[in-house]
Amino acid sequence: MAINRRDFAKTAMLGAIIHDAAAWSDRPTMAPVSFDRHCWRIGGQAAFLVSGEFHYFRVPKADWKRRMSLLKEAGGNAIATYVPWGLHEPTEGQFVFSGQGGILDLEEFLETAREAGLYVIARPGPYVYSELNYDGLPAWLTQNYPQVLAHDADGKPFHATSVSYVHPLFLEKARRWYEHAGPILARHTVSKGGAIALTQVDNELSGIHVWYDSLDYNAEAMGYGRAEGRYPRYLRQRYGDIAGLNSAWNTKFVSFEAIQPVRPGASDVGGLRRAKDNLDFYLGTVAEYAATLAGWLRQMGVSTPIVHNAGGPSMKANYLEMCRALGANFVLGSDHYYNGDQTWPQNAPTPQFALNAFVSLEQLRLFGYPPTVFEIPGGSPSDWPPIVASDALACYRANLAFGMKGSNYYVFTGGPNPPRMGQTTDIYDFCAGIGAQGEIRPLYAAEKEFGKALESNPWLAEAEREFDCRVAVDPEQARANLYWKSRGEFEFSSAESDEFLHKGVLTSALCASVSPVLCDIRSDEWTADRRTPVVVVASSAMRREAQQRVVSFLHSGGKVLLLPVLPATDENLRPCTILADYLGAAIEHHKNEVPRTTILGVENILSNGRQWRTVRMPQGAEAVGSDEFTQATLAWRLATPAGGQVLFLGMSWIHAMRQHGRMVRAALGRLGLEEKVSCSNPNVWTSLRTSGPKSLLFAINLFNAPLEAEIQCRPSWSDHAIALGKRTIPAMTVSEIEVG
Amino acid sequence: MAINRRDFAKTAMLGAIIHDAAAWSDRPTMAPVSFDRHCWRIGGQAAFLVSGEFHYFRVPKADWKRRMSLLKEAGGNAIATYVPWGLHEPTEGQFVFSGQGGILDLEEFLETAREAGLYVIARPGPYVYSELNYDGLPAWLTQNYPQVLAHDADGKPFHATSVSYVHPLFLEKARRWYEHAGPILARHTVSKGGAIALTQVDNELSGIHVWYDSLDYNAEAMGYGRAEGRYPRYLRQRYGDIAGLNSAWNTKFVSFEAIQPVRPGASDVGGLRRAKDNLDFYLGTVAEYAATLAGWLRQMGVSTPIVHNAGGPSMKANYLEMCRALGANFVLGSDHYYNGDQTWPQNAPTPQFALNAFVSLEQLRLFGYPPTVFEIPGGSPSDWPPIVASDALACYRANLAFGMKGSNYYVFTGGPNPPRMGQTTDIYDFCAGIGAQGEIRPLYAAEKEFGKALESNPWLAEAEREFDCRVAVDPEQARANLYWKSRGEFEFSSAESDEFLHKGVLTSALCASVSPVLCDIRSDEWTADRRTPVVVVASSAMRREAQQRVVSFLHSGGKVLLLPVLPATDENLRPCTILADYLGAAIEHHKNEVPRTTILGVENILSNGRQWRTVRMPQGAEAVGSDEFTQATLAWRLATPAGGQVLFLGMSWIHAMRQHGRMVRAALGRLGLEEKVSCSNPNVWTSLRTSGPKSLLFAINLFNAPLEAEIQCRPSWSDHAIALGKRTIPAMTVSEIEVG
Repeated sequence: MAINRRDFAKTAMLGAIIHDAAAWSDRPTMAPVSFDRHCWRIGGQAAFLVSGEFHYFRVPKADWKRRMSLLKEAGGNAIATYVPWGLHEPTEGQFVFSGQGGILDLEEFLETAREAGLYVIARPGPYVYSELNYDGLPAWLTQNYPQVLAHDADGKPFHATSVSYVHPLFLEKARRWYEHAGPILARHTVSKGGAIALTQVDNELSGIHVWYDSLDYNAEAMGYGRAEGRYPRYLRQRYGDIAGLNSAWNTKFVSFEAIQPVRPGASDVGGLRRAKDNLDFYLGTVAEYAATLAGWLRQMGVSTPIVHNAGGPSMKANYLEMCRALGANFVLGSDHYYNGDQTWPQNAPTPQFALNAFVSLEQLRLFGYPPTVFEIPGGSPSDWPPIVASDALACYRANLAFGMKGSNYYVFTGGPNPPRMGQTTDIYDFCAGIGAQGEIRPLYAAEKEFGKALESNPWLAEAEREFDCRVAVDPEQARANLYWKSRGEFEFSSAESDEFLHKGVLTSALCASVSPVLCDIRSDEWTADRRTPVVVVASSAMRREAQQRVVSFLHSGGKVLLLPVLPATDENLRPCTILADYLGAAIEHHKNEVPRTTILGVENILSNGRQWRTVRMPQGAEAVGSDEFTQATLAWRLATPAGGQVLFLGMSWIHAMRQHGRMVRAALGRLGLEEKVSCSNPNVWTSLRTSGPKSLLFAINLFNAPLEAEIQCRPSWSDHAIALGKRTIPAMTVSEIEVG
Repeated sequence: MAINRRDFAKTAMLGAIIHDAAAWSDRPTMAPVSFDRHCWRIGGQAAFLVSGEFHYFRVPKADWKRRMSLLKEAGGNAIATYVPWGLHEPTEGQFVFSGQGGILDLEEFLETAREAGLYVIARPGPYVYSELNYDGLPAWLTQNYPQVLAHDADGKPFHATSVSYVHPLFLEKARRWYEHAGPILARHTVSKGGAIALTQVDNELSGIHVWYDSLDYNAEAMGYGRAEGRYPRYLRQRYGDIAGLNSAWNTKFVSFEAIQPVRPGASDVGGLRRAKDNLDFYLGTVAEYAATLAGWLRQMGVSTPIVHNAGGPSMKANYLEMCRALGANFVLGSDHYYNGDQTWPQNAPTPQFALNAFVSLEQLRLFGYPPTVFEIPGGSPSDWPPIVASDALACYRANLAFGMKGSNYYVFTGGPNPPRMGQTTDIYDFCAGIGAQGEIRPLYAAEKEFGKALESNPWLAEAEREFDCRVAVDPEQARANLYWKSRGEFEFSSAESDEFLHKGVLTSALCASVSPVLCDIRSDEWTADRRTPVVVVASSAMRREAQQRVVSFLHSGGKVLLLPVLPATDENLRPCTILADYLGAAIEHHKNEVPRTTILGVENILSNGRQWRTVRMPQGAEAVGSDEFTQATLAWRLATPAGGQVLFLGMSWIHAMRQHGRMVRAALGRLGLEEKVSCSNPNVWTSLRTSGPKSLLFAINLFNAPLEAEIQCRPSWSDHAIALGKRTIPAMTVSEIEVG
């Protein structure tokens, strides 16, 4: 898209007012920041990205330098800041980047950061949230142009500050914002001698809709009823003709233009397909929006990698289309909060939090990004329940243990909100380590301690998690809950499967001192490695290629733990039983009021009420598990060619009892598991990270009492297990134990 | 109800088989156990009831004595045991109370307890749950008589083991069970020289329905369509004639018999009234059932107080009818668990848990019972997340701080389940302090420490919480969530009000070191005391007498903090504005995207989006709070005759920020609050308990870090504040600080 002449003129003028870029040519330049699939690189050297959120529009200018020094003392090498549209365009068309006592002085801030030797992650919105009024948008936008608001399926706005990302008028206004902010940022990128190393488009995309329980159905943006509208175009591309769509949806539409949106909720096949298509379409518009913003940045001369932050561990499934659209010079990261207000499910970094962080970081790794937590709690939006320094440190270390390669404390420090722009308060410091007045709080010591740990093990930046088994996941599954609301006629929905992956399989594995990593069932990457077993957590729907891939893997000697069902359809819910056919097996739901199972000699294993008995056993299969009351066969083992093996367990569970861990261990043991770590205490989770001949074992205790564990491990550079002795892990602590 | 001759004969025969009661006449008798509204009494002396759940059908008989001694060493004076119907009547009509390797030897167990000097709380069901198959009912019951199953509003069973409490066939079978178990229990009551001090009817009543998201709509039990059926009778009694009902419900029924049940969910006035009537009716059947069971026990000669355990803090609102029906020799208690499986909202005794416990214990006190926790975690149903000894101790002490006068560790010890009766496992010990094999775990030390604390301060049994303000509650409000599912045309539903009471007002008060107690707005008891202010958390519906009572209180010099709305109807949702009329005020909902308020000089107070502006100020009222952006008046103060005062705050909130506490303190300060305790740290909650000239201050830290606080208090026996100095409360600890 070309910038029109008039806008260019405006931009040039504005640039001239603020600074003459040429005058800066003698600035000392900062080493370039790059990344690969393993880690961030500064001047080519592997390095952690240790950032702190630091808002020029809040922190008093007189204290910028001192607080930046404090961040560096805590091991920081970057700061992140939102650049709020609403602040800089308070009246439509009037852009201000100076005045108001310094709170608008973006450029001086960027220059101060450069002088301090801190990289900057610039986050110019349009949305920034940040507890600002209108979530950082200008007040005039939704007030004067209510037509840009996102709509629910009934065509009504559902939240006062939720806009439709691809509404033409919103894009027009947003582009003008980027035309003014972009060139300023461009002048300060590292390549131009400035401090900006990364630039983020928007914030926690899709959140402004899904948090309010809707997708966006704004008719003008989505183009319902218009032949060239986005939605009819999408459907036409997907189905070719309306007959194809009607056949898939079980509907009788006369044309693509005749289709109006519906809320998800159906549980019949046609309704589910329709809801899934709607979701895929919506997420496509999110990707289009993100790519548009990134394109504008490029046009404005911003050459840094583009980044984005998922609003939470489970949200990144919403960005598959976006990651494709943004291509190579893009990094998706995630926000990992554990403490909001008292209504949050947990207010401390519990194991449940750590498990979600583990999956999140693994997903980012699989996407090919250095796993980065763009918002890690550097405070809390609520004073109460309080953020506790030792909790925060445990959170940082647990993330490090599970593969975090970069992080950004949200916030590192705070200050007064711009006048009448604070959504929650006049003084905003998020209970940060450095308070609004610049005062130092206990949380800062935790940040400092974490920084020290990173500095003393710089090789960790390149380290990888040692693993003894892999869990194959379909990243798309994590968004099934947005369309697959109830199980319907299926045995096990993808939403249920995703929950079982987290609360069942992975939790049991970690409690059993198994060391899983994730692998992407959509790719071929994992199939060549047949040394470690692969766990496949199926649902009733598994994409065709994935079923085929599992079959090939088994057929060429791979070892698979398959559970809890045999897929019956492909990802579009069309019959597809490649995997079941290959195995020659059939299952059906096993209703039992006393869901207790014995598997591989482990007795009293509780399902969460979902069990499947095998009604056709594969030829040559050996039964290895049955219902304790009815003796129905629930688990079996089958040899496949070339030394392969599959072990099928027909049950799902919520990890709650020691037996769950024992079962997972026994099943993987049958498939040749050679454990990387052995830890005697199921309440202590471990992660062994290795780079070359160096290893560090993280022992994770997220409970309120010290725990003892006898630990040994077998890093890949060692030909024998290394005893680490009996260790005491203090309460709510992640211990780092040197190996060798 | 009379026992028929044939049944009597059976009972007598059975008694003869087992024991001859006369032979026991030389047994040393145990002191009688009684209670009053303050505490339990043993031989007339105030005493804590310190019980441990101890199942004769699980714990190996050979180890009974030793484990009972362990309980006594831990300060225990009682044990509780279920007496599972399913165990003792495995085949219909065949009652067994001996054999099977001792697991049926109820009487020997009762005798052993007596010899050990431990009282027994007998819990003969019919339901016991206890992770037994069929929740402790006989397998044959629901298998052979499926008609006794509870039905949902569509007339279908909704859970395999949920029966209809008042189904005639179920009652017939249950009565036969009581006819066999009752006489055995009767022989062993304290009055007969035995150990049974208390007898519980059923278990966590109503849970077996509401946990599965339904009331019971079994047509035969409820009598839909039959003139003399329970439901038509109830409605006739409530409304007199069908016209009255139709007018209330906004329906057009031709007769009471024509009315079929509906699921709650309506939000129109008529639908809400219908749903509320349905709930009240259902809870009446629960009460009828409990009273029937209690009556049977009396008929069988069981003379002990009857007890029952609410399934959790919020459930006791379901027992208002039951408490009335069971009358004087009855004690309602509650179960207080904080750790289930990983899907529980919290796995540690967080402040949210403690707040619920506080309200629960206060409610029991208001009902006139010695607040008793009939199941306090003596373990956990799940191995993981683990139950941690220090967490458990903090839980016990927090309950003590908030007024617990008796408790029962569930479970104190465990053992093998009866063959094929374990629902979850063969070996059941609930991770208890004393394991299934008799092994001693760290949790036992916590129990012992708690026992020591009780022994060293026996006067605490009679102590009361010192308070400086009262919060008037309508206990019925806590069940509004069962019928008032969405707000509808009302400003603020009773369900919302109940949530606001917990997460807003009370949490803010405790964080602000205000010392509230609850008072019952339905009674006159609180109105005479005008020394301390009363907080009234209203909803759109407030019962007529309550409105009148608040008016009288104000009119005679009482001081009231009223929030967040002025009631518009009575409890039956009929227009009733007694309170608003007295005040001469009118409010309306104040929609504001930036819900920030200044009240009494406290700035930046966040509502949770619900604010009401005053559109008619009372004559002579002084505005004391307004919206920070629009300046709309949200709060005002009015003097009433005889030195009374009312302060109205038109907003609700979730306690999250220090400002919430400051506001509550400022508002109560205006109403003459004289603080009992002053604590400098808002994260430390306190409870000052006094008996005569003795006081103990509990300082509660339920976070993962030590907290410091400067504390002083003013017990009622002192004419000045007593400085307790700067105290450090260790992480996850409730400290007991001696006063004076």
